[in-house]
Amino acid sequence: MHETEVIERLRGLATHPGARDLRDDAAVLDNLVITHDSVAEGVHFLTTDPPASIGWKLVAVNLSDLAAKGARPVGALLSLTLSENDWDRAIIDGIEAACESYSLPLLGGDTIALPPGAPRVYGLTAIGRAGEQVPSRSGGSSGDKLWIAGTLGDSAAGLALLAESERSTGALVDIYRRPIPLLEMGISLAGHATAMMDVSDGLLIDLSRLCDASGCGAEVDFDSLPLSRAFIAERGQDRSARLFAATGGDDYALLAALPADLDVVSLSLPQAPTLTCVGRLVAGSGLKLHDRDGDVPLPESLGYEHRASISPVDDRL
Amino acid sequence: MHETEVIERLRGLATHPGARDLRDDAAVLDNLVITHDSVAEGVHFLTTDPPASIGWKLVAVNLSDLAAKGARPVGALLSLTLSENDWDRAIIDGIEAACESYSLPLLGGDTIALPPGAPRVYGLTAIGRAGEQVPSRSGGSSGDKLWIAGTLGDSAAGLALLAESERSTGALVDIYRRPIPLLEMGISLAGHATAMMDVSDGLLIDLSRLCDASGCGAEVDFDSLPLSRAFIAERGQDRSARLFAATGGDDYALLAALPADLDVVSLSLPQAPTLTCVGRLVAGSGLKLHDRDGDVPLPESLGYEHRASISPVDDRL
Repeated sequence: MHETEVIERLRGLATHPGARDLRDDAAVLDNLVITHDSVAEGVHFLTTDPPASIGWKLVAVNLSDLAAKGARPVGALLSLTLSENDWDRAIIDGIEAACESYSLPLLGGDTIALPPGAPRVYGLTAIGRAGEQVPSRSGGSSGDKLWIAGTLGDSAAGLALLAESERSTGALVDIYRRPIPLLEMGISLAGHATAMMDVSDGLLIDLSRLCDASGCGAEVDFDSLPLSRAFIAERGQDRSARLFAATGGDDYALLAALPADLDVVSLSLPQAPTLTCVGRLVAGSGLKLHDRDGDVPLPESLGYEHRASISPVDDRL
Repeated sequence: MHETEVIERLRGLATHPGARDLRDDAAVLDNLVITHDSVAEGVHFLTTDPPASIGWKLVAVNLSDLAAKGARPVGALLSLTLSENDWDRAIIDGIEAACESYSLPLLGGDTIALPPGAPRVYGLTAIGRAGEQVPSRSGGSSGDKLWIAGTLGDSAAGLALLAESERSTGALVDIYRRPIPLLEMGISLAGHATAMMDVSDGLLIDLSRLCDASGCGAEVDFDSLPLSRAFIAERGQDRSARLFAATGGDDYALLAALPADLDVVSLSLPQAPTLTCVGRLVAGSGLKLHDRDGDVPLPESLGYEHRASISPVDDRL
């Protein structure tokens, strides 16, 4: 595979221990956590998406990587394609709103012109201050319980509504367009988690990455997946709805492995979002899903693999 | 102006002191120096450029920003557009060569797919370790002498040769394609310079930026501009050749303001490149050029302003 070759080549250049072999959500340098993600028109967002939401999302998905490592945002470098006036004003509105919401100052970056008609491309490098521990994806072990902070499937359900009609509105569309990075929750969990990552491509694919990195397998109680009221109202909560929620992607929930004997109730956690135990890590490899009706066969696609990535099993969002 | 408005908006988000109001080559965070530059096909490089040289240059121009702040490279995050196999292999060859030459490990980043036919876009965030002092552009004052490390005009002369024929070769073409960031020289000068920056868009435009930031003017002895043998052999060294060298851009020389009473000969400097005094900062504003024949009128264009930028007077390269 071509992409695999590219990534193996790049991994050969990732000789710094803080690069974590390009297999984590972010790099660690001194006591900083650093991540970079780019988004391109026609690939990661649609020309019909409101530009303010693209700007918000560019910041939010990078902050979600910091959240997954328990880091507090410190600053960002922005790479901005210049476009039409109204579009640029609107995308900066969205960037500004996110920067202000999460106290993220801009440190630098560049603006570039592209040839006429080229798809717009935006990049952001987000830098956060690490806590005492920066959980990786690889520290989980058999017996750890699996917890999800937030709900699954809302964003994918919102995108499906938009695919039906560009004019769709409502809570699910809002969540698709303006995801919320779970920074406080990530900071609270980081000191306890044996492994943590954000669920950006779908629970099943992201959990399989955490399992691969940690050298174990996982069992998931499908009935326990956290679903929002808006999601249930739109798509129900049967097995098929839960498979949709577990594979849709763009969630920006947090997936944490916590020691089985940890009393989660005793932790000092933010009131929101909800933290839900969905299963546990087990010896071996691969995912096993079950619900009240028995085993749930693994779907053909475990999640969103559209996005090319620096890591063969990781879209870095 | 639209771009001015964009940049003013972004400057409003640059509330961190280390952002240096988005007016410097790089940001400062803790004891790190951080810069990000993107390059796009058809704007910053040509489809006919060898991809290995594009990869090298992507790394080198970012390292030149670190050199201008006296920082030692620590790591980089890469944003890579996936393209055809051969092209991607070659650009990674160039990135790899530069990373190895300058001991720059890859820390992270992402690879993205673009829609078919879209111009390729590459970005790099380079991070360096600051020395005891990180010279800005704004610390110069009247009386400081102006020094240039390296030579001027080679790259622009190489580009002109390529414009005549894509098959041009030789030292000037090599310098255009594979610029050398003056890291050791930057580190040596940083502790002494009142102001420093890299000359990426042409001496005259970059010096005018340093003057604007420092609140003073400058006098330049045009006869003293450092020109390479290869440049002189190609374009001569008369006033017109010197104007070409002072405005061509893409030099990645360093421009430093040093106190007039500093004994430069006594400094512990690398043997190469040459360090040349070309003038001094003066009270007032604006540039005055002179050579053996008298005053040299300022050319209409002071340098390369093609590249859009996060700062109205700074292409951040």
